[in-house]
Amino acid sequence: MPPRYEVIGVDGIPEVRPGDDVARLIVDATRAQGTPIVAGDVLVIGQKIVSKAEGRLVRLADVAPSAIATSIASGTGRDPRLVEIILRESRRVVRMDKGVLITETHHGWVCANAGVDQSNVDVDTVALLPADPDASARGLRETIRSLTAREVAIIIADTFGRPWREGLTNVAIGLAGFAPLKSYIGELDSAGRPLSATILAVADELASAAELVMGKLDRIPVAIVRGLPLTPSEEGSKPLLRDPARDLFR
Amino acid sequence: MPPRYEVIGVDGIPEVRPGDDVARLIVDATRAQGTPIVAGDVLVIGQKIVSKAEGRLVRLADVAPSAIATSIASGTGRDPRLVEIILRESRRVVRMDKGVLITETHHGWVCANAGVDQSNVDVDTVALLPADPDASARGLRETIRSLTAREVAIIIADTFGRPWREGLTNVAIGLAGFAPLKSYIGELDSAGRPLSATILAVADELASAAELVMGKLDRIPVAIVRGLPLTPSEEGSKPLLRDPARDLFR
Repeated sequence: MPPRYEVIGVDGIPEVRPGDDVARLIVDATRAQGTPIVAGDVLVIGQKIVSKAEGRLVRLADVAPSAIATSIASGTGRDPRLVEIILRESRRVVRMDKGVLITETHHGWVCANAGVDQSNVDVDTVALLPADPDASARGLRETIRSLTAREVAIIIADTFGRPWREGLTNVAIGLAGFAPLKSYIGELDSAGRPLSATILAVADELASAAELVMGKLDRIPVAIVRGLPLTPSEEGSKPLLRDPARDLFR
Repeated sequence: MPPRYEVIGVDGIPEVRPGDDVARLIVDATRAQGTPIVAGDVLVIGQKIVSKAEGRLVRLADVAPSAIATSIASGTGRDPRLVEIILRESRRVVRMDKGVLITETHHGWVCANAGVDQSNVDVDTVALLPADPDASARGLRETIRSLTAREVAIIIADTFGRPWREGLTNVAIGLAGFAPLKSYIGELDSAGRPLSATILAVADELASAAELVMGKLDRIPVAIVRGLPLTPSEEGSKPLLRDPARDLFR
């Protein structure tokens, strides 16, 4: 039997507001559409609904921009209050050029605008990334277990750009229940030679697989990846973070 | 009905040799395992078997390293003949540090070692990327159409590293039959605001989805992605190439 798996979008999740129970919304929506959660499912959840439920929203009117934010904003034609929020969410500016602000977030992710996003939130409000996406993922996993008695894996995902290639891809920014990297180091190839430097970012590949049914308009903010065996682990997303000292592009 | 799709590994493809008909091998293998190709399938094909079939193999014994290749090799502890091949496959060195050689290939892809790879080929031989992966994809698509009377899309894929994140992901280096980018620009979000800067690299997400069943040991060098509607296009992979003038990391 060839290996095969399925990806199923989860429709019918209502607009999420601060304090909502995202795990219950997902469980209800999967039941309502006739695809209830089964053991071993990976649930890939767009960051935005997690951030909204956790109240990670900031009204621009409540932000007083610093001098450096105002200076950067004037150079790039952007709202200085938005730049202020991006800088507060960052521990390091990686590149600032051509109207683009790429920073390293407090979690260690490198992305445009520290993941701060104005889409699919109220006008004059922005959404931040979850404060601790691995903790968010663990909490969702536990609540889903208590609601369904099913053991699942969780990915909190966001779409990031990357150097050298056009287009965003969905990647994992938090996860629970499986190992995000898969190593082939030490295994032998068809010529009997040990494979070197072969570690796959399965968490990011899962996030990308899910994105293909999720869409950007928040109508399908969750997808189920079903039927793929993963390595259980409690290590969270940290193995995906490259040590800045080993990074040639930071 | 929620959107859903399936990914199916294609097992039982024999060791590929120069001159082999990869399209026929794939058609035969999909039939033999009981998952014959249907219209609309995306076939994601690992670069290695395409390179082998096209004879894109070089014996190290046949290579005389240049002075610069010898110099780079002595600084990194690598085989000067391998470095020579990497430089011949490159039009630009992007980074050379910490034992890593990242170059821009003649196609425009930025990756480690110009995609030159020693795994799963005979000892003392290396495999190059296909000379024109879009042409390879078009040819495979046409042959599959003539063998099956089915219209499919093709991705030639390889696993590349990326800055900032650990682990490789599978990406498209050549394709035929669909648009590699999906743009949401101009569509309205839930607050009625037009989305900006939202273009998804669906070709790379498809390659990543396929990798999850392909594995690195060449036992499953092909996967079918089935049930996902794509936008027909003849533009090939070029839209995935970022213009170096717009790239902050080159």
